[in-house]
Parts: sequence; C-alpha cells; structure tokens
Amino acid sequence: MKTVFITAALLLASSAQATSIFKDNDDAIAYRQAAFTTIRYNMGALGDMAKGKTPFDAAQFQQRANNLALLTTLPWEAFIAGSDKGKTDAKAEVWQDRATFDGKAKKFMEYAQALATAAQSGDEQASKAAFMTFAKACKDCHNSFKK
Amino acid sequence: MKTVFITAALLLASSAQATSIFKDNDDAIAYRQAAFTTIRYNMGALGDMAKGKTPFDAAQFQQRANNLALLTTLPWEAFIAGSDKGKTDAKAEVWQDRATFDGKAKKFMEYAQALATAAQSGDEQASKAAFMTFAKACKDCHNSFKK
Repeated sequence: MKTVFITAALLLASSAQATSIFKDNDDAIAYRQAAFTTIRYNMGALGDMAKGKTPFDAAQFQQRANNLALLTTLPWEAFIAGSDKGKTDAKAEVWQDRATFDGKAKKFMEYAQALATAAQSGDEQASKAAFMTFAKACKDCHNSFKK
Repeated sequence: MKTVFITAALLLASSAQATSIFKDNDDAIAYRQAAFTTIRYNMGALGDMAKGKTPFDAAQFQQRANNLALLTTLPWEAFIAGSDKGKTDAKAEVWQDRATFDGKAKKFMEYAQALATAAQSGDEQASKAAFMTFAKACKDCHNSFKK
C-alpha cells in the first residue's frame, strides 16, 4: 500500500506542482535547500546503517526510506527559471541541460521508491543494496549539476 | 491506501526515529527548520486556495496535502535536549513542558492526516475546511512554543 502512495506522488509531482509557489528566486532556493537538507539527514542515518557504523534497525530503516520516497519528490519544482542566480550550489547546467537534469531527478525518485519497497520487506541485505543504488544516483547528479 | 501509509508513518514517528541522527544542537536546529520550511511553502499554496486568492486545484491540493501528512511527522525528533540553545525560535517551554508540546505536535499531525484524507475526496469545501483546522493547530502551537 505504501508503494501505491509513493507512485501516486511521483506521477503527480510534475503536473500538480507545476504552478510555482515561490514569489522569487530566493524563495525557490530556500525551499529546495530545505528539501535537500531533510533528504541529507534521513540518508545519513541509512548510510550509517548500510556501512555498518550503526546496527541495522529495520523499523527505522523503513521509516526513513518512506520519508525519502516523498522527500525526493519535493526539490524539483523549485528549480525555477532564473534561480541559478542567488546563494545556490546549483550549476547553470541545470537550466542549460534541463532534460538531463530531469532525467537524473526521475531516476533518483525511482531509486528512492525502490528503497522504500526494499525496506518494507525488512530484509537487511536488500535494504542496504537498495540504499547504495539510491546513494549513487544522488552522487551522480551532484557530479554534473552541483558546484 | 494513502491514509494507511500516513497512519503507519505517524505511528512509527515516535519510536523508530528515537535514535538521534544529529551530532549536535546546530544539526538538530537545521533539520527542524528545514522541515518547517517545506511545511510552510506547501501550506502557503493551500492557504492561498483556501482563502480564494488562487483557484482551487484539486490535484495540487491533494498532492500538497499528502506532502504535509508526511512533512509534519519530521520536525519533532529534532527537538533534542539542549537544542533550545542556538539560532532557534523555539521557546524554552518546549523542553519545560514537553507533554503539552508533544500533545500539540500529535494534534498537528492528526489534522494533517485529516487534511490529506479530505483532499483525496476532491471535495473543495471539505478540503478547505480541513485546511483551516490544520492551519489553526499550526498557529496554536506557535502561540505557546515559538518566539
């Protein structure tokens, strides 16, 4: 049932959130940075478990993976035209090669969904493997689009 | 199905996230402020619709209400002991009267869930009414616990 929810969120993300909720570039930058901050901390906790720094906790892993499945849908609407100007680490390439950026964002959301599905099984190895795939997608996009 | 997901998230929020993911107070403050920032923008868009400033868009309303159902579960783990010190608008009362604070947080999450459920129906009046109740809970907690 969780997967159904996440899929719906993913499908709606591009259409329903098309109307901008930001009055200016600073607003958009603040929102996407806030979204990435919540992603970073939830990822961090899973990364510690995936690397064996902290014991695997299936309930917490599932909770944070579910958080990530939704949180990863948030930042994209905030990459509005013109918001490469301001206090941002986003490269101009986001707007110059939007198709590639959007493709990587889509992959990232899909891996987050797969992570939530794997976590739901409670299986430690599957959960950790799904996390590593997800984390690689994060890094891959940063390599191209983050200063 | 969405409601089932949200309820699960709500139930797990207090237990599964009990292990702190913050290395210090600044970390905790950054996380909760980021979470509240994402809440604020999603609320803002719904508030504009609820007040008739922008036309009611059922799909967007549903999407953002779903966002809020999850986002409202995030900030609470970050009110760790000692994090009344630092760049925060949280009053010391959060830690001095934690039971009241937690009670208001719980109500807030429940109203967010009710908002998501109402939005799922697509009914404009029910969606707007649920939003007003939710927004009041937001303000009510701020009156007691935010500088």
